Amino acid sequence: MTETIVQKIAIIGVGLIGSSIARASAYIGAAETIALYDADDDARKRLATLELGLVAESAADACRDSDIVFICTPVGAVKAAVEACVEGLKPGAILTDVGSVKANVAKDLSTAPGHVHVIPGHPIAGTEQSGPDAGFARLFDGRWCVLTPLDNPGEGYDDAVEVLTAFWTRLGSRVTTMDVKRHDLVLAITSHVPHLIAYNIVATAADMEEVTRGEVVKFSAGGFRDFTRIAASDPVMWRDVFLNNKDAVLETLGRFSEDLAALQRAIRWEDGDALHDLFKRSRGIRQSIIDAGQDSAAPNFGRDAPPEDVD
Amino acid sequence: MTETIVQKIAIIGVGLIGSSIARASAYIGAAETIALYDADDDARKRLATLELGLVAESAADACRDSDIVFICTPVGAVKAAVEACVEGLKPGAILTDVGSVKANVAKDLSTAPGHVHVIPGHPIAGTEQSGPDAGFARLFDGRWCVLTPLDNPGEGYDDAVEVLTAFWTRLGSRVTTMDVKRHDLVLAITSHVPHLIAYNIVATAADMEEVTRGEVVKFSAGGFRDFTRIAASDPVMWRDVFLNNKDAVLETLGRFSEDLAALQRAIRWEDGDALHDLFKRSRGIRQSIIDAGQDSAAPNFGRDAPPEDVD
Repeated sequence: MTETIVQKIAIIGVGLIGSSIARASAYIGAAETIALYDADDDARKRLATLELGLVAESAADACRDSDIVFICTPVGAVKAAVEACVEGLKPGAILTDVGSVKANVAKDLSTAPGHVHVIPGHPIAGTEQSGPDAGFARLFDGRWCVLTPLDNPGEGYDDAVEVLTAFWTRLGSRVTTMDVKRHDLVLAITSHVPHLIAYNIVATAADMEEVTRGEVVKFSAGGFRDFTRIAASDPVMWRDVFLNNKDAVLETLGRFSEDLAALQRAIRWEDGDALHDLFKRSRGIRQSIIDAGQDSAAPNFGRDAPPEDVD
Repeated sequence: MTETIVQKIAIIGVGLIGSSIARASAYIGAAETIALYDADDDARKRLATLELGLVAESAADACRDSDIVFICTPVGAVKAAVEACVEGLKPGAILTDVGSVKANVAKDLSTAPGHVHVIPGHPIAGTEQSGPDAGFARLFDGRWCVLTPLDNPGEGYDDAVEVLTAFWTRLGSRVTTMDVKRHDLVLAITSHVPHLIAYNIVATAADMEEVTRGEVVKFSAGGFRDFTRIAASDPVMWRDVFLNNKDAVLETLGRFSEDLAALQRAIRWEDGDALHDLFKRSRGIRQSIIDAGQDSAAPNFGRDAPPEDVD
């Protein structure tokens, strides 16, 4: 049995990420006590049967005596969650989150009283599923967790960052720190705009009156099915991401559209060389991602029958 | 041992799809003899060691006495491949292909002499890998194979379509027939435009001077990595697809861009309801694809640690 990192953690908002933190913490023994709270009545009832930790009757109750408080709501709900927690936050507690946008969330977390250490965070991990049943203990294994520490923190802040870093590391994450603005720009291209595009193409397909939905489903193995997985992600979470990272998303989207217009032109003018050159460039980046341990090297992510099965 | 469907097949162009047909046919015993030819010297040398079938010295040699000839080159090379086969095609032989575009390819296949049965075909299956080593016998298992029979065929054509249908069915495919123009439009939205968009976003990311390539790789698990898989597909194959399905691709791309502009506007004006409504709609189509057996229901395509591992 390894030592615990802290005595008690609280998880406010127990969906895919929150429940995965609970599961991982319990499995790995990173905290002695895990308190859970979700503002949704049904979610709280479900939590009572899942046995992921002690289900509190209020956010403040969950926070009481907690060394780390993880706000795991959609980013648009962080501010209200912090307000609900305030009464229970002990001096020196770490207040962190898991949202995919950091600049706006940092402001919302910073409405907490000065005696807590606000450390915005973002584990770059997830699946297209949501809710407390969707989480699993290994979700963070080998994935990056970005912390965006504040610029002018109070005393003891560095130690707090060390504790939170140790916690995420124990859950399997690789931890790094970043400036909030930079985080939001990098995530716009690696996550937000890809999701927006996936949602968009699924909508375009659904609206094509000459093509039936049945045909789209039937022939989806040609590439489309991959986009539908991403586009099956939680609508509330993603709405909040786009509303809270507007500038970086619009900037990145502008570049994407310019590049797409150039590709469109190459097709119209049958410029095969331009198409081939651009297509060829992108193989390298795939290999880098596999080499970095951020994706499976198996063809089709390994979801279809592997060669060794019958060969 | 099940009965063979035909005595001999020839595969011209032995990459991912061609080598998978060879492997599946051999494994399942769908043909007595499998002849292979690839115009590329290195590929032919590799084939000699892979033992997927008899490696012929010319396309015509491979075709001799073959009941079915599968042209498995990129679609831009089909015409030249047919020319190279002509001398060896026996009367009554079936001449088919596997290309992702059917209208242009149907014309190219139809340059074959009148004594063969031209049946354009398209198995909707593949991976991001290419070359003869990338194929596997189960690639077509449960996947649709579309045949686009000609409008004014010669005598015995219906029987030929039946034989080809039986062959693909034996390889595990579900076979359907479609009009060529409709095929090309449906595939534009289910396959061609998704690939173009994936290539495009990988290029946009690579060109963003404020974000380093290392950051893109590091944080790719947020969604981007899925796009890089599709964008790792064979550049020559895809160049040819876009050049040969220009009209349907441009039409579909126009719709995609219109829809994206509307989403962009919703973000700019912070219209959360519009975003939420659109995001919510797309979950249903994912479920339909899973129900239709065209994708894995496992979160993240099952590539990350499954819940049951540690939970």
